[in-house]
Amino acid sequence: MSNARNHRRRLVLAFGALALTPILTHAQLFTLTKEQMIEYTAQNPFERFPDGRPKVPDALMERARELSSEEVLAVLPGKGFRNQYADGFQILHPRTKLVGRAFTVQFMPLRPDLDGIINARAQASGLARMNNQAAIDMLQPGDVLVVDLFGQKEGGTIVGDNLFYYIMKATKGAGLVVDGAIRDLEGISRMDMPAYFRQAHPTAISNVMISGINVPVRIGSATVMPGDLVFGDAEGLYFIPPVLVQQVVDNADVIHIHDEWTRKKFDEGKYKSSDIYSTPKDPALKKEYEEYLKKRLEEVRKNYK
Amino acid sequence: MSNARNHRRRLVLAFGALALTPILTHAQLFTLTKEQMIEYTAQNPFERFPDGRPKVPDALMERARELSSEEVLAVLPGKGFRNQYADGFQILHPRTKLVGRAFTVQFMPLRPDLDGIINARAQASGLARMNNQAAIDMLQPGDVLVVDLFGQKEGGTIVGDNLFYYIMKATKGAGLVVDGAIRDLEGISRMDMPAYFRQAHPTAISNVMISGINVPVRIGSATVMPGDLVFGDAEGLYFIPPVLVQQVVDNADVIHIHDEWTRKKFDEGKYKSSDIYSTPKDPALKKEYEEYLKKRLEEVRKNYK
Amino acid sequence: MSNARNHRRRLVLAFGALALTPILTHAQLFTLTKEQMIEYTAQNPFERFPDGRPKVPDALMERARELSSEEVLAVLPGKGFRNQYADGFQILHPRTKLVGRAFTVQFMPLRPDLDGIINARAQASGLARMNNQAAIDMLQPGDVLVVDLFGQKEGGTIVGDNLFYYIMKATKGAGLVVDGAIRDLEGISRMDMPAYFRQAHPTAISNVMISGINVPVRIGSATVMPGDLVFGDAEGLYFIPPVLVQQVVDNADVIHIHDEWTRKKFDEGKYKSSDIYSTPKDPALKKEYEEYLKKRLEEVRKNYK
Amino acid sequence: MSNARNHRRRLVLAFGALALTPILTHAQLFTLTKEQMIEYTAQNPFERFPDGRPKVPDALMERARELSSEEVLAVLPGKGFRNQYADGFQILHPRTKLVGRAFTVQFMPLRPDLDGIINARAQASGLARMNNQAAIDMLQPGDVLVVDLFGQKEGGTIVGDNLFYYIMKATKGAGLVVDGAIRDLEGISRMDMPAYFRQAHPTAISNVMISGINVPVRIGSATVMPGDLVFGDAEGLYFIPPVLVQQVVDNADVIHIHDEWTRKKFDEGKYKSSDIYSTPKDPALKKEYEEYLKKRLEEVRKNYK
Amino acid sequence: MSNARNHRRRLVLAFGALALTPILTHAQLFTLTKEQMIEYTAQNPFERFPDGRPKVPDALMERARELSSEEVLAVLPGKGFRNQYADGFQILHPRTKLVGRAFTVQFMPLRPDLDGIINARAQASGLARMNNQAAIDMLQPGDVLVVDLFGQKEGGTIVGDNLFYYIMKATKGAGLVVDGAIRDLEGISRMDMPAYFRQAHPTAISNVMISGINVPVRIGSATVMPGDLVFGDAEGLYFIPPVLVQQVVDNADVIHIHDEWTRKKFDEGKYKSSDIYSTPKDPALKKEYEEYLKKRLEEVRKNYK
Amino acid sequence: MSNARNHRRRLVLAFGALALTPILTHAQLFTLTKEQMIEYTAQNPFERFPDGRPKVPDALMERARELSSEEVLAVLPGKGFRNQYADGFQILHPRTKLVGRAFTVQFMPLRPDLDGIINARAQASGLARMNNQAAIDMLQPGDVLVVDLFGQKEGGTIVGDNLFYYIMKATKGAGLVVDGAIRDLEGISRMDMPAYFRQAHPTAISNVMISGINVPVRIGSATVMPGDLVFGDAEGLYFIPPVLVQQVVDNADVIHIHDEWTRKKFDEGKYKSSDIYSTPKDPALKKEYEEYLKKRLEEVRKNYK
Repeated sequence: MSNARNHRRRLVLAFGALALTPILTHAQLFTLTKEQMIEYTAQNPFERFPDGRPKVPDALMERARELSSEEVLAVLPGKGFRNQYADGFQILHPRTKLVGRAFTVQFMPLRPDLDGIINARAQASGLARMNNQAAIDMLQPGDVLVVDLFGQKEGGTIVGDNLFYYIMKATKGAGLVVDGAIRDLEGISRMDMPAYFRQAHPTAISNVMISGINVPVRIGSATVMPGDLVFGDAEGLYFIPPVLVQQVVDNADVIHIHDEWTRKKFDEGKYKSSDIYSTPKDPALKKEYEEYLKKRLEEVRKNYK
Repeated sequence: MSNARNHRRRLVLAFGALALTPILTHAQLFTLTKEQMIEYTAQNPFERFPDGRPKVPDALMERARELSSEEVLAVLPGKGFRNQYADGFQILHPRTKLVGRAFTVQFMPLRPDLDGIINARAQASGLARMNNQAAIDMLQPGDVLVVDLFGQKEGGTIVGDNLFYYIMKATKGAGLVVDGAIRDLEGISRMDMPAYFRQAHPTAISNVMISGINVPVRIGSATVMPGDLVFGDAEGLYFIPPVLVQQVVDNADVIHIHDEWTRKKFDEGKYKSSDIYSTPKDPALKKEYEEYLKKRLEEVRKNYK
Repeated sequence: MSNARNHRRRLVLAFGALALTPILTHAQLFTLTKEQMIEYTAQNPFERFPDGRPKVPDALMERARELSSEEVLAVLPGKGFRNQYADGFQILHPRTKLVGRAFTVQFMPLRPDLDGIINARAQASGLARMNNQAAIDMLQPGDVLVVDLFGQKEGGTIVGDNLFYYIMKATKGAGLVVDGAIRDLEGISRMDMPAYFRQAHPTAISNVMISGINVPVRIGSATVMPGDLVFGDAEGLYFIPPVLVQQVVDNADVIHIHDEWTRKKFDEGKYKSSDIYSTPKDPALKKEYEEYLKKRLEEVRKNYK
Repeated sequence: MSNARNHRRRLVLAFGALALTPILTHAQLFTLTKEQMIEYTAQNPFERFPDGRPKVPDALMERARELSSEEVLAVLPGKGFRNQYADGFQILHPRTKLVGRAFTVQFMPLRPDLDGIINARAQASGLARMNNQAAIDMLQPGDVLVVDLFGQKEGGTIVGDNLFYYIMKATKGAGLVVDGAIRDLEGISRMDMPAYFRQAHPTAISNVMISGINVPVRIGSATVMPGDLVFGDAEGLYFIPPVLVQQVVDNADVIHIHDEWTRKKFDEGKYKSSDIYSTPKDPALKKEYEEYLKKRLEEVRKNYK
Repeated sequence: MSNARNHRRRLVLAFGALALTPILTHAQLFTLTKEQMIEYTAQNPFERFPDGRPKVPDALMERARELSSEEVLAVLPGKGFRNQYADGFQILHPRTKLVGRAFTVQFMPLRPDLDGIINARAQASGLARMNNQAAIDMLQPGDVLVVDLFGQKEGGTIVGDNLFYYIMKATKGAGLVVDGAIRDLEGISRMDMPAYFRQAHPTAISNVMISGINVPVRIGSATVMPGDLVFGDAEGLYFIPPVLVQQVVDNADVIHIHDEWTRKKFDEGKYKSSDIYSTPKDPALKKEYEEYLKKRLEEVRKNYK
Repeated sequence: MSNARNHRRRLVLAFGALALTPILTHAQLFTLTKEQMIEYTAQNPFERFPDGRPKVPDALMERARELSSEEVLAVLPGKGFRNQYADGFQILHPRTKLVGRAFTVQFMPLRPDLDGIINARAQASGLARMNNQAAIDMLQPGDVLVVDLFGQKEGGTIVGDNLFYYIMKATKGAGLVVDGAIRDLEGISRMDMPAYFRQAHPTAISNVMISGINVPVRIGSATVMPGDLVFGDAEGLYFIPPVLVQQVVDNADVIHIHDEWTRKKFDEGKYKSSDIYSTPKDPALKKEYEEYLKKRLEEVRKNYK
């Protein structure tokens, strides 16, 4: 995919990388420098993409498919991350979970003075224009495109079915989140990639401009960083900072086993719910549970090696 | 203003004062006595649970599965019951009808002074706390848990998937209605029990207190009594007073046969809709219909014996 | 203020004076004369029903089943038709497209003085009443009933399952659009006809009167004419003036082939999205596309003969 | 399906065919003929304007200024007029009542085929265009302009401050009601004419067309006829059919005196509210009230002569 | 499932059973006994009304007029009372504060079986009916009528102008709070009593029944107890438990003086806001402030004696 | 105000000015460099503040007080600026216009990893914390504080009455715009500074972090640049790029005179609205108008010298 790599190079030029001079970045309206990306995501325990974006490992992403929103909530607020959840979306395939690394794009209502500057730079760097396709062409396998289109319906349509198809190919079906709209719902709903959007509308994208790529964005009441693990289920979306991903999936193993044991006990029909849940009251039961947990955890975790 | 004082006295009488004994019931914040339950549901023609709650027979519940909202509406308003319908819910399994006996729970926003009293009493009686599980542990087969959580989303989550599973076992899959939220939508949606809720949210229940169990509650613009037959279809929910259940299902038989005959006639392709519906205009057709109705009613009702 | 009086006179002339013909009218509260229907739809290139309503040919309706909202949008606004789209409906069968000829009905909140006049006339002409069934009995195969019930929920229910069934038979399953409600959702959802509605409610239609049949009506922010081609997909509804139907379906062939080719190219995995979409940048690719388009168009259009 | 054809024929008859008179037409998209206006408002007991619109006398309009919404409600529903009230408006001067005769205008979303016909006719009659000013130029003293702009905000602005000023002059300050928007709120709010509108927006009117002048229109859930007495207070708007105006204002005299007496009694501080209101319980008080009412009614009504 | 039966027994105990005497109270649908009222408001440090309702002293009510919502918030959540604020009301006189003792009334949608019981009892005690006037006739000077009408607009109108006038007289102008509607807005807005309501509508109260008088009620997301100090300003309403009233007003004195000093300093124009607010950074300024506070507190509090 | 100047200097250090090193900017989460500010506002025809922010002259701000929203709209969209208007605010003093230079602040939902970085830097530069007061302390006379708090109500309160008072002093009463909330509405409403806000709530600001100062921000559907002329009237807010300010106020002179003449003509009572407005039809009138315009423009503009 050398084409894409060239494109990336040109973009980097456009966005002021190389950056021998102090000025470049022009960050607000565009992107973070690699140094800034690393600084803002300093707690990331994993590898990074060439532009500094954290790269949650594939193996953890695989385990994250077993999560539910509640299992993320079991960890994040306790660590001070209380603004990582967003809901109120239409969900394209409510029975398929969305898991991937956040690739963020921020739009603002178009303003010709700013738009002129953005596009002049883009062109100087070899891009035809700075638009939704410029961002889409940067996507990697495992990326979830996370777009702030400020809830716009008419003209706030990040993609139709052709670009949706392209994203599906480029990200290996990871997914799309847009606080805005999509078009071609008819065609898109036949494609096998998770998507969260506010509305569908037949218009093409218009009257907006890209103000940032891979910068912090706000989706509903959540603050999303590039490289966050995006997790979506039938309830809503969680944006999980890389530093907490391991803890979330490990803790979820415990919750899964706890649920498993709890329902076994309920199945026996001998107990009130409060005898068993959330913690068994009877010391013998408590012990039974703890042994069950230990054994099952071992079994489960064997598979991860 | 001795007039007002007299008025107060009369009110106290009206409201059942005399009250020579101390304390008892504490009803507003909790439950009805058996005597009150019987008084408030005096028209109930069926047996009762030990606590006085009406027990609509299983056989009628079975027949009620064939109802639609319109068939309930065909009877209730004519009897003065104009506030027994509620809609605007998310429906977990829109193609499965909900039928069961109302077991009601009312919550209010938590207030520490009242909550302290509630829990002190609960503990004095051997309960750890007065909370959602205390109510859930009282459920019987055929009960539908009907919860007023005043539409609360965050923290207004009556159950997650473990307690949902318990309710499904305890009620034999009868169902759940909550004017509030549930959590663990992911897990719950794989379980086979009807549920009507306003929202889903990952938070656990919090910042609320139980103010009544098996008392009259308001769900949307309906007033629900413990022991009402709860009926839910793809449109919404009806809370049917026991005294009207027999009439509703009997009348529905007629409607079913009327629909059957009407569509047969439409299938013939010879009539305008107004020739046939809602009443056949032609005397010969009218007679044909009446004979059909009579014959089919006999067939249908044979099965009930 | 003789100026104003002259103005009034000129208005009367403008508004269709001359009118030597007997045919008229009382139109506002009822229907267009055949002459008016023809005048208002003068651009119609197709045959007409006996009452002057345009009759888009069956063959074009068949081709319209392959459309999507975006393909209609690709033509209409460019021709000045910017108010032909409506959305925000509940869709009975979101995966089945709705295609048919608009048969319009307008309701207004009931007013006894006007309702009296309407019904007196209806009875003088042998109709029992002017009501929803009077309109429904006029439906033809291929008609879509398009009803302005001003979004009313309670009492704004154009049909229940019996009349829905009748419409399905009479229109050969073409469909129903109501800016208002339906009842009997339970029964209707088992029938195989597309329907777009705002709400479902158990009440029967009441407290409204028919103010026009086959007159221009407003559905959301769209103006619908009798005889418009109604097209509905998972996004919303388009009301296409007959004069533009041919162009819409012809243009859609091109779009379909363009999408086909675009995705083939994306499948090759060698290109960025902007290399290919919306127009191939490389002259060789452009030529390839044009040849592909030409060949496929020929293939596709062969089938239409 | 000859049945359906007959039905159609009967409908045409019902809808006013036969029509031997020359009386023009094209009504749906424009205006009622004088004959139609008279027919639709046949119960009007007062004089009429040259175009047939009922003319509630000035003296009754003057008395109507003393009304409140509740006093209109006291009469209309009992006469079967249950859809004459609309609220949810922004009110320009909430402390000034609006009273006047309805001059109605209906807009629809612009559609170039229909708009072309409308304007061709307008020009043939010497009008530059059929637009909001064409309607405004027809206003008479005492008229309230009642406009259905279907709640449109952007582009749904019936007037700005210059035309508002013109209407104020032409109607002698009677007023404006628009189910849509106004612009120039800044300037308009300094002018002394009542106005009810949904929103204010800076755009000029656009993307709409006039579909009817002095035809029945819907404002919220009310049906308004030309010549209705429009009454607005701080709560909302009532559209009173001329036939009921006298009864409404006469009955309001009784209500005013009843309120006067009730408060006098409350001022005495000797009574509970239920001793006095809504009807005095004590026979002596009842008699006192009846004498008071009789005496005051005479005094009040003396002034009307 | 003997476990569940034991559970039920314990619950009954917890909920105050023992109940050797028959019936009485019937509290849920009506009122608390004096004993219950005292138990539920056990922390009340003040006198009580004859029915046990706490009576916050007039002198503290007077001081409470100087409060703002923020000054209540400064105390309540810290004491665990996080659900005592409600907003989203229309405010009759936004520049006049509302202060008084809560007299609570709860309505539910009418249900003829329950309504029959309620009224039979009322009549047995000499009341004509149990309705809004029965409650209003119990009001005392300083009471604020706090009504849960579940946000109902049509028919949810607790009073019109006559009964509003009566309440004004009976409570000495203390005020009205209704989570529902009022009618006669025109007349009411000329009366000098604070009122908070959701909507205004011309209909009279209907289709509801009183389910409790002076019981805990929910207003928005607040739980209100009879005898709470109701405080309303331009933002919203606080329901202050009597036990916290003294602390709230005392603490507000400090806040007032702090604001006074802060603005004096800002007036000097020498400081950034953060030099002074919320706490002066400079030790000398801090000392100056503390001395000022001490002196002014003494002055202010002298007046309370 | 040397204190404020020091503060500014420290902020500048914190935000990386002087900027000899490549690191500085860190712009996304903070501020634009002076170079970026100048680049993004390159069309500014006026002087600049030391940080590069455009400084619309006081004299033009004075003339802007005579504007209305419509007069801004008369110029901006024609120049391609279609996204500069925002409405839907609560307006503190609807009869006082807001005019000033935009000083923008952007908040995002708090995220501890980012918040830690922001505050570490702030502290390294001598600021206690990066919070709302840090921004407020930078305000200059004539500045309008424009805050994106993403519509947050609880905890989204940019200021209470003390800081509102400070802003009033620091900006000489220019004003406040917050897409979020304020607290202390009671106290603030007695202060004489224009303010536009979404809601009022008693909570203090919390759970948010400052992500940018004097960067482009989105307010509703408008994109605001630091230094834009903010104009607010009873309808809403316009953010006018400096390059268009002169043209807007000059053009408004013409509109004022046009309105003046139009109403004079309407006052004569001889004309229909369309004779005069928007352009006089009669050539003689047209000439009269043009002469009037010329004369009055000269008079008006004399005052500007």
